Amino acid sequence: MVSRKKIIREIIREYRTIWSLGVSGSLMGWDQETYMPPKAVKERSIAGSSIAVLSHQLLLKPDFVQLVERASRKRNLNDVEKGIVRVLKRSIDQAKKIPPEHIAEVSKTTTLALEFWKKAKAQDNYDIFKPYLGKIVELMRKTSEYLGYEIHPLDALLDLYEEGLTTKDVDGMFAKLEPGLKKVYDKIMSEHPVPDKHPLEDVHYKAESMKRLNEKALTILGYPWDRARLDISAHPFTIGIGINDVRITTRYEGFDFKRSLLSTIHEFGHALYELGVDQKFMATPVAGGVSLGVHESQSRFWENQIGRSKEFVESFYPYMKRYLVFLRDHSPEDVYLYFNTVRPSLIRTEADEVTYNFHIMLRYKLEKMMIEGSLSVDELPHVWNEEIERLLGVAPKNYSEGVLQDIHWSMGSIGYFPTYSIGTLLSAQIMRKIREEIPDVDEDIRKLKFRRIRKWLREKIHRHGSVYPPKELVRRALGMDLEPEIYVSYLEQKYLSR
Amino acid sequence: MVSRKKIIREIIREYRTIWSLGVSGSLMGWDQETYMPPKAVKERSIAGSSIAVLSHQLLLKPDFVQLVERASRKRNLNDVEKGIVRVLKRSIDQAKKIPPEHIAEVSKTTTLALEFWKKAKAQDNYDIFKPYLGKIVELMRKTSEYLGYEIHPLDALLDLYEEGLTTKDVDGMFAKLEPGLKKVYDKIMSEHPVPDKHPLEDVHYKAESMKRLNEKALTILGYPWDRARLDISAHPFTIGIGINDVRITTRYEGFDFKRSLLSTIHEFGHALYELGVDQKFMATPVAGGVSLGVHESQSRFWENQIGRSKEFVESFYPYMKRYLVFLRDHSPEDVYLYFNTVRPSLIRTEADEVTYNFHIMLRYKLEKMMIEGSLSVDELPHVWNEEIERLLGVAPKNYSEGVLQDIHWSMGSIGYFPTYSIGTLLSAQIMRKIREEIPDVDEDIRKLKFRRIRKWLREKIHRHGSVYPPKELVRRALGMDLEPEIYVSYLEQKYLSR
Repeated sequence: MVSRKKIIREIIREYRTIWSLGVSGSLMGWDQETYMPPKAVKERSIAGSSIAVLSHQLLLKPDFVQLVERASRKRNLNDVEKGIVRVLKRSIDQAKKIPPEHIAEVSKTTTLALEFWKKAKAQDNYDIFKPYLGKIVELMRKTSEYLGYEIHPLDALLDLYEEGLTTKDVDGMFAKLEPGLKKVYDKIMSEHPVPDKHPLEDVHYKAESMKRLNEKALTILGYPWDRARLDISAHPFTIGIGINDVRITTRYEGFDFKRSLLSTIHEFGHALYELGVDQKFMATPVAGGVSLGVHESQSRFWENQIGRSKEFVESFYPYMKRYLVFLRDHSPEDVYLYFNTVRPSLIRTEADEVTYNFHIMLRYKLEKMMIEGSLSVDELPHVWNEEIERLLGVAPKNYSEGVLQDIHWSMGSIGYFPTYSIGTLLSAQIMRKIREEIPDVDEDIRKLKFRRIRKWLREKIHRHGSVYPPKELVRRALGMDLEPEIYVSYLEQKYLSR
Repeated sequence: MVSRKKIIREIIREYRTIWSLGVSGSLMGWDQETYMPPKAVKERSIAGSSIAVLSHQLLLKPDFVQLVERASRKRNLNDVEKGIVRVLKRSIDQAKKIPPEHIAEVSKTTTLALEFWKKAKAQDNYDIFKPYLGKIVELMRKTSEYLGYEIHPLDALLDLYEEGLTTKDVDGMFAKLEPGLKKVYDKIMSEHPVPDKHPLEDVHYKAESMKRLNEKALTILGYPWDRARLDISAHPFTIGIGINDVRITTRYEGFDFKRSLLSTIHEFGHALYELGVDQKFMATPVAGGVSLGVHESQSRFWENQIGRSKEFVESFYPYMKRYLVFLRDHSPEDVYLYFNTVRPSLIRTEADEVTYNFHIMLRYKLEKMMIEGSLSVDELPHVWNEEIERLLGVAPKNYSEGVLQDIHWSMGSIGYFPTYSIGTLLSAQIMRKIREEIPDVDEDIRKLKFRRIRKWLREKIHRHGSVYPPKELVRRALGMDLEPEIYVSYLEQKYLSR
């Protein structure tokens, strides 16, 4: 009988090729968004899809599948070995269940849908996108049938992004969150007149200065430049090419500098997670963040809990002023307000900490209805508008402010949005836990010393990679499950006591 | 019986995966030299070697090998089909003959040798590198035995870089070249005192200005920026990731600006070749330059025949002066002299058009002796010094100026050097042929209009990719074989009639 250790070693050895194809796919993806010459797109798409197909074949090679199955029947697997087997079984299972023709059809449809979504948005004409959205909903329902689910068809899709997540979880999360959030929001809106734009939103900056400020922020937060990069792309993202090769991007729109700074800090959070995985997991199936929700908890932690905190803004203010000289006319308090204005905005990506989750609730509710067949793409814009008005008190004047604003559905990403809320809520729980264990953590932030915070995150979360499934990782790190009330009380303290 | 067309179609379809792995390998290589974070090197080497192994396996998959063999037995293959079969048979043949363990040993040895070569060069201590060089010579002799040869063991290695090239060819080429070259060189040396450094060699420039000048030069020469890039690396190179994705690099040493400019123009020549391949060869085995010699003919053509010509220097002078203001103190004639000083230099990469080939003759002679076993690594430095003094009249004062100067041998590249001479000689033949067919070509250069030249090169050389073996391609394009005398008479005309 072959020993447990030997089987695992063999799995890791065999997996290296699949991992290597993943590296090359990630690098191609990064390159395509940053430096690739525009006319290379056709060749790149041939190469990208060939490599995806090859990787799929290697994953389903009978020898490899059998090896993983044999490992899963072994007793006494340690945590890491269990993690390796769990992650691989999950990938193999998904790959087996979805027929290649379906994958090809989804890929073909979403490639088209993305183009037509762009066109529809540019022309503010929902009808251009509608048939493609209809097709995508249909395909995703089929994906869900292929994958299988116990209660709701959306469950199968939620699980793709957040292992183990169900509509029951999300319904429960939002049921707990909504009343508290509403209360905070109504109170802010009743006590303060709805503020206009903050004047700093319109002030222009030079890309070169903003770049230096972003680099300064990253250096202060502890970005390891010898294992990571910052580049420019149309939409900011983080990509983990390896444990020692993580790359983030930002963009320089030329005005409203908090957008570039806070999104850089947000991506820093994602990057730090990937960079903090235990080095001994290099090139294994567990090297990398475990789920989108946990990932978002890391980005939101640095963006909101640190980047939008009074301590950080006040202490980082001198650097901001050094690179953005127009800040001489604005006090640190004013910059803090600029970073934390609560206002009913129709655009999710521009929403503040209080209203952000309303946008996710809306999308989740609509996704659930569309997938179960109780909402058609014809009725969608109308229901969108009604629902966002119910939540925020304002209604879109056009499709670009409404149903056409997000890229996700055009890419077939249905069931993805809830991970944004999970991350946002978890980030407040993480900060509360850190504050329990490091009572003077605010002093660290005030001194712009982040070593202890980084160490805590690495110890409790990052180093584990994908060894534990997300719910278990959260329980281990925080000693509790997701608790939406903690986020509400964080908001109360931040926004109602001032 | 399956039709010829169907088999070829099947080969191309199967080959796409191998091509895609090639794309990913090239992109990884480019990234490693340009943007990769330094600490990513370990993961990158795992990914790179896994993908190389996988590609090797796919190439040797029995189904694929059989398909290529069946195609090769078909009659009436057209030129393109013949090219596809020839290129694949060659790759399969090489892959079959060299055992994987040998490849692994070469890879392991050269990885070490490269490090020890760097160290040896930095400390000017040949003994540090010597044992690794000895091992490499031994391994390369073994490679040659695996591949097989008719007359000389170096033949098998020459063929790796230049399909069909033999020591008989190279011996013949140098036998014809050496006397003429010697005559030109002696005449220049006797008529002109050996010039000191040109003062411009020491003038400093700002990297940013030099970058703009290089970009200007590339734009004027016709670099298609939407299909190509210019980046920075420690050593300039060109990489064809696809027909529509070719990337060159340069470096900014901060002084002696011709080095950056002429090397950028040199790489432009390589890039234009890859970019000019017929679009219908995309993702096939014939998409890409056919050999290093032909490639070098393209880079040398633009570097020497255009970049160092009086017409180009004089017409491009106003741009040079715009970005490098110190040129106000130097006339166009002076810059021309600066670009074309003939001087006995001990360093190959700094050599002028007259002395350059002496450096290659030296290396080729020593490689031949080492591979046949008539020269040991112990005697090598002594023989190197004697021989270079015989050719140039000067002797190295240290190893870095002598046997340790080039990276090639440390990487296992034995048999590579002659392609530099082949390219250099061919570039003069190409210019002569263009001048026959476009008699007023000098006017084009003077007007900085390169459309007709680019078109000629594309028609006669670039568009064919690897369809024809190098010797046949040359014969088709020029109506003759390699003729070293043409290079000599080019030099006579340029350097002796002034």
